[in-house]
Amino acid sequence: MKYCHTCSNELSIKTPANDDRERFVCESCGEIHYQNPNIIVCSVPCYEDQVLLCKRSIEPRYGRWTLPGGFMENNETTYEGASRETLEEACARIRIHGLYTYYSLPYINQVHMFFRAILLDLNFSAGAESLEVELFREKDIPWDEIAFPAVSNTLKHYFNDLPRNIFPVHSADIILGKDKQRLIVPHDSAV
Amino acid sequence: MKYCHTCSNELSIKTPANDDRERFVCESCGEIHYQNPNIIVCSVPCYEDQVLLCKRSIEPRYGRWTLPGGFMENNETTYEGASRETLEEACARIRIHGLYTYYSLPYINQVHMFFRAILLDLNFSAGAESLEVELFREKDIPWDEIAFPAVSNTLKHYFNDLPRNIFPVHSADIILGKDKQRLIVPHDSAV
Repeated sequence: MKYCHTCSNELSIKTPANDDRERFVCESCGEIHYQNPNIIVCSVPCYEDQVLLCKRSIEPRYGRWTLPGGFMENNETTYEGASRETLEEACARIRIHGLYTYYSLPYINQVHMFFRAILLDLNFSAGAESLEVELFREKDIPWDEIAFPAVSNTLKHYFNDLPRNIFPVHSADIILGKDKQRLIVPHDSAV
Repeated sequence: MKYCHTCSNELSIKTPANDDRERFVCESCGEIHYQNPNIIVCSVPCYEDQVLLCKRSIEPRYGRWTLPGGFMENNETTYEGASRETLEEACARIRIHGLYTYYSLPYINQVHMFFRAILLDLNFSAGAESLEVELFREKDIPWDEIAFPAVSNTLKHYFNDLPRNIFPVHSADIILGKDKQRLIVPHDSAV
């Protein structure tokens, strides 16, 4: 970020009055350009004892399996965003049951929210960002080929909770350890 | 948003390739300027049967009562953000127990997350954005002077759940009705 998007003046980095951290500030028009985390909204589309996964046709993690999801857009709710992403990536229609897991990823300024959902029909197919879309039972999940740690963690919770059919909200922080390894730090266990 | 913050060229509004909606696009350097919802992280600081509220010393809603909270910042987790805001607004130290309520507000592109917490001590006081900070029992809550609908709704859930001492996650969308009245549309009741 180098220029003001309101007046095109070159930006400064300084701590505004009544603030406690540096921001991009325009000293010409006065605008402060805040930068804040983004929300990734995802679904866990369920059918009987199976979960729908998408094999990614885009980077990052081309060829790896993920739950459908993506950036929440302006003018939509979390449920609308997760449903839209599921339709786009898996051509699948869902009904959302509620938030199931969420993760803070401070090293990339994202919060990932996963919503448990039921598939409304089995007419799913690969959307533009997917190579394949497939239902998996627990024993068939390609654990070594999952795209993102939040997806693996959500799937583990899901198959752990499935026998009791009780799905409390689980949450964790995902941080970078040494060697940039991603570590999952669970919050105190859900009630 | 009028100018590219990377190269200062004037921006166009167009739908990029492989996208389905209009964005601010720089036709000089190619950068797409996405705009996405922000996260507001708040706490519900509890002490015995009381909750800590802050009387706002800033607009919007100057003089009204709110739970401590504000924009989640880059490089922090949701828990860190809610704890930071509680320290800033109420000079109060908390331990977070977990997510308690969350709301989508698509008309202002925000998601509000409220975390249930216990006060670690009673040495709270008004921070820079508060006129007063006070513990309230249910019967003393100034219901007609609460700043935001998500705060009222969270407090109602809290005092409703308190007798059982079980705090499931509650969620809703807050949308604009006619006359710009804000309507709370609860998701299916939490399990």
